[in-house]
Amino acid sequence: MSLAIDGTHDPALQSWVESANDTGSDFPIQNLPFGRFRGEDDADWRIGVAIGDQVLDLRAAKVIDSCDMNRLMRLLPEVRRSVRQAISEGLRVGSTQQNTFKAALRPQSEVELGLPCQIGDYTDFYTSVHHATTIGKQLRPDNPLLPNYKWIPIGYHGRASSIVPSGQSFRRPIGQTKAADQAVPSLGPCRRLDYELEIGVLIGRPNVLGESIAMASAEDHVFGVGLFNDWSARDIQAWEYQPLGPFLSKNFASTLSPWMVTVDALAPFRAPFSRPEGDPEPLDYLQSTANREQGAFNIELEVWLQTERMRQEGHPGERISQSNYRDAYWTVAQLVAHHTVNGCNLRAGDLFGSGTLSGPNPEQGGSLMELSVGGKQPLHLTNGETRSWLEDGDSIVLRGYCQQEGFRRIGFGECRGTVLPAAVSERKAP
Amino acid sequence: MSLAIDGTHDPALQSWVESANDTGSDFPIQNLPFGRFRGEDDADWRIGVAIGDQVLDLRAAKVIDSCDMNRLMRLLPEVRRSVRQAISEGLRVGSTQQNTFKAALRPQSEVELGLPCQIGDYTDFYTSVHHATTIGKQLRPDNPLLPNYKWIPIGYHGRASSIVPSGQSFRRPIGQTKAADQAVPSLGPCRRLDYELEIGVLIGRPNVLGESIAMASAEDHVFGVGLFNDWSARDIQAWEYQPLGPFLSKNFASTLSPWMVTVDALAPFRAPFSRPEGDPEPLDYLQSTANREQGAFNIELEVWLQTERMRQEGHPGERISQSNYRDAYWTVAQLVAHHTVNGCNLRAGDLFGSGTLSGPNPEQGGSLMELSVGGKQPLHLTNGETRSWLEDGDSIVLRGYCQQEGFRRIGFGECRGTVLPAAVSERKAP
Repeated sequence: MSLAIDGTHDPALQSWVESANDTGSDFPIQNLPFGRFRGEDDADWRIGVAIGDQVLDLRAAKVIDSCDMNRLMRLLPEVRRSVRQAISEGLRVGSTQQNTFKAALRPQSEVELGLPCQIGDYTDFYTSVHHATTIGKQLRPDNPLLPNYKWIPIGYHGRASSIVPSGQSFRRPIGQTKAADQAVPSLGPCRRLDYELEIGVLIGRPNVLGESIAMASAEDHVFGVGLFNDWSARDIQAWEYQPLGPFLSKNFASTLSPWMVTVDALAPFRAPFSRPEGDPEPLDYLQSTANREQGAFNIELEVWLQTERMRQEGHPGERISQSNYRDAYWTVAQLVAHHTVNGCNLRAGDLFGSGTLSGPNPEQGGSLMELSVGGKQPLHLTNGETRSWLEDGDSIVLRGYCQQEGFRRIGFGECRGTVLPAAVSERKAP
Repeated sequence: MSLAIDGTHDPALQSWVESANDTGSDFPIQNLPFGRFRGEDDADWRIGVAIGDQVLDLRAAKVIDSCDMNRLMRLLPEVRRSVRQAISEGLRVGSTQQNTFKAALRPQSEVELGLPCQIGDYTDFYTSVHHATTIGKQLRPDNPLLPNYKWIPIGYHGRASSIVPSGQSFRRPIGQTKAADQAVPSLGPCRRLDYELEIGVLIGRPNVLGESIAMASAEDHVFGVGLFNDWSARDIQAWEYQPLGPFLSKNFASTLSPWMVTVDALAPFRAPFSRPEGDPEPLDYLQSTANREQGAFNIELEVWLQTERMRQEGHPGERISQSNYRDAYWTVAQLVAHHTVNGCNLRAGDLFGSGTLSGPNPEQGGSLMELSVGGKQPLHLTNGETRSWLEDGDSIVLRGYCQQEGFRRIGFGECRGTVLPAAVSERKAP
C-alpha cells in the first residue's frame, strides 16, 4: 500500500499558476492528475498534467522525454513518485524552473482531452453492496444478494474498443428485446437506456502471467483513478444476459474522464475498510492490516443530468444523486489481488470499473434503474420534466472530489456524455 | 459474403516447395495461412505464410513492406485477396519469383511461432446448441436451453492479456471454490480443470463506432480462422459466475493456434446453414440468402490428449473427441452482424471464440465436462488411465482440417497447451 503523505500534499503549497490557487479548482498543485491532450496541430497525443485551468506538457517541460502514457504508467512506484515530485516542485511559487514550465503550459480550453491512456483489457466489478442489493430486490425480492457476493469481488470482462473520452456523444443502441407480453423478440432502439456511476481504476505496473499480486503490493500496480460511466441498455440486458452475463447491453459505449488522479495524490483521502457486523471476514488473500486501516478511498461522487430542454434554456443541469466511494464493499487492493489470484496478468493501461457506486440510501442510487425503481417511479426534475430512463439529447455528467480537514480539496474534473438518437434502423414495418 | 473460388484453390496446383505437395501436409499451396514468427536473432515478430514445412517471410519475399500483421489485416478484401494471389503465384511450380521467394523461406522447425497478431478485444460466443444443451441438462434437467438461445448468438467478453500462443504451458489456476457440502468457500488449486474446443475468428477490417455491419458484408470484416482452447476451471466457475458470467475461471490462460487460415482459403469448404425443423427463423438482421446457402464452414475438428505418462512412453496422445464446425447454431457472419447491431466497433486483431464446439452425439463433446458428464463418468484411455478432469502434465492438442471432393485438403496445424502444477499457495494450514 502506498499511503505516504509527503510534501506534495502540503495544503500551504501555492503555484505560480494562479488559477490553481482558486479554492474552487479541481486541480490545485496538490492534485496533479495525468492525462493526454492534443492541440489543433498535433498529430499525436501528448502527456499532460492538469494544473488550475492549464495543462502542463510534460515533454515540453523536460520532465519526461516520451509521449507514451502507457510507458509512463509502467514505472516503479518510487520512480512514478519522483516524477510527481519534480512536477510539484516546478509548479511551486519560487520554482527555478518557472520559465521552462511556463512555456509548456496550454489552456485546457484550447486543447482536446482524450482517453488518458491506451486502454488494454477492461474489467467491470460490482463492488457496491447497496447497488447489488437494490437491483437484486427488483429481480428476487426474497433473496436479493447471491451467496457469493460477500466472499468474491464479483467482476466480469467488458469491451475496451468502445470506451470513449468525456465529451463524446454516442448513439442510442439498437438491439434485440423481448417484453414479457411479447411472444417473440424484436429488433429496435433501446427503450430503457441508463447510466452507471463508477470509478475507473487504471493499472500501471504489470504482473507476469501465472504470478499473483499479494494485498501488500496491490496498490503499487495502480496508477490512478478517474470517473467512469458504464452506459447500460436495460431492456437489451434483460433478454441477453443469461447465462453468460451482459454483452451488447454494455459495449455500445462507456465514457472515461480525461484525468487520472494518482494513488499518490489520493494518499490523504484514505478511509478504513469496514464490514457491517455479522458479515464474513474476507479470505486471507483479500486481507491486510493496511487494507483494514486505510484500504478505502474517501471520494465524493455526484451525478448531474442536463436534458435537451435545460441545454436550450442555458440551465447547467441538475444533480440527481450523490454517493461516496468509501461505501464500496471491496477495496481497489482487493480487486487487484482477486483479479490476479489465478495468475491472470494485468498490463499498463488496463481499466477496472468499480461497478455502479450507489450509497446506502435510496436517493443515492448510481443508476436510473435504482432511482426510478426499474422505471416504475419516474424521477421528477425541478423544471417539471420527468425521467424513468434517458431520453435523446440527455447529457449525464459525473463529478468527484476529495475533501478532508487539513488538506486542500482535489477534484476529478468531469465525465460527460450525451445520448444521440438511434441510427435509422433497417427494420421492416411489422 | 466472400465465396469466390478462384485459381488459388485449383487442386492441380503444385508448389516448388516440395513438402507442400505431400498429401498429408496441412499447408499445401491452396492454404497459405498467415502467422507471426521470429528467429533466434529477431527482436520483433515477422509476418509469415506457412507452405509445407516452411514459412515464407513476406517482407523478405518483397510481398509486403511491413511487419505489422494488424495493419495487413485491416486491408480491404480485394487488396487482401491480391496479396494472397501474389503469394500463390510466387510459390507455384514455374514461378519467375522462385529465387526471391526461396531466399525468404525458413523451416518452421527453426523459428518460434507466436500469436498470429496483436489481439485486441476478445469475445467468446456459445454457438454450439449441442454444448449448450448438454451443459444445460447438467444444471437444469427439465429446461436445458434458455429461452433466448435460439434467437441471440449468446456471447460475452473475455480476457485478451492471457491469450497465449500454441506450445506455451500454463499453471493450474488457484481460486475460490465452495463445494455444496462446504459452509464457507476456500482458496486452493482448481480441482476441475477443463479444456474447450473452439474456433478462433480474427477480425480484419474495422467498423466505426455507432455503425453496424450488415450480414451482406459481414465476412469482409473477417481475416481468418484458427483453433482456440478456452481452458476452464469448472469449480471456480460454478462459485463465481452468478450473476455476471465467468471471470477468473477463464482468464488464467487461453491458447490460440499460430496460423490464420483466411476466409479466402476456406471458400471451397462452405456449407449451408440450416436449422432443425420447428426452430425459429433468425430475425432479419441475422439473415441473408448467401448465409442460408453457404454460411457455415465445413471444418473437421479433433481433440487429442497426451498425458504425462504417454509423453514419457513416447506415445503421441489419444484422440478423445471430434466434431465439425458446420454443426454450430450460428454462423461467423451472424456473430459479426449481431456483435455490431448496437454500433459496437470491431478492430483489426479482435478475436471471436466460437464457444465449445460439441457435435450432436455424446462422444462429440468439446470439453471434459461433457465427456465425463460433469466428472461422474471418467473417460477411459486406451493405456488404462482415466480422466474426469485434466491432471498436471496433461497436454491438449486441437487439430482441424477441411476436406471435400474436388479440392485439396487444407489443415490448421495444431493448438497445443500443457498444464503445469499450481503455484505454491500462500494459504495457511486450516
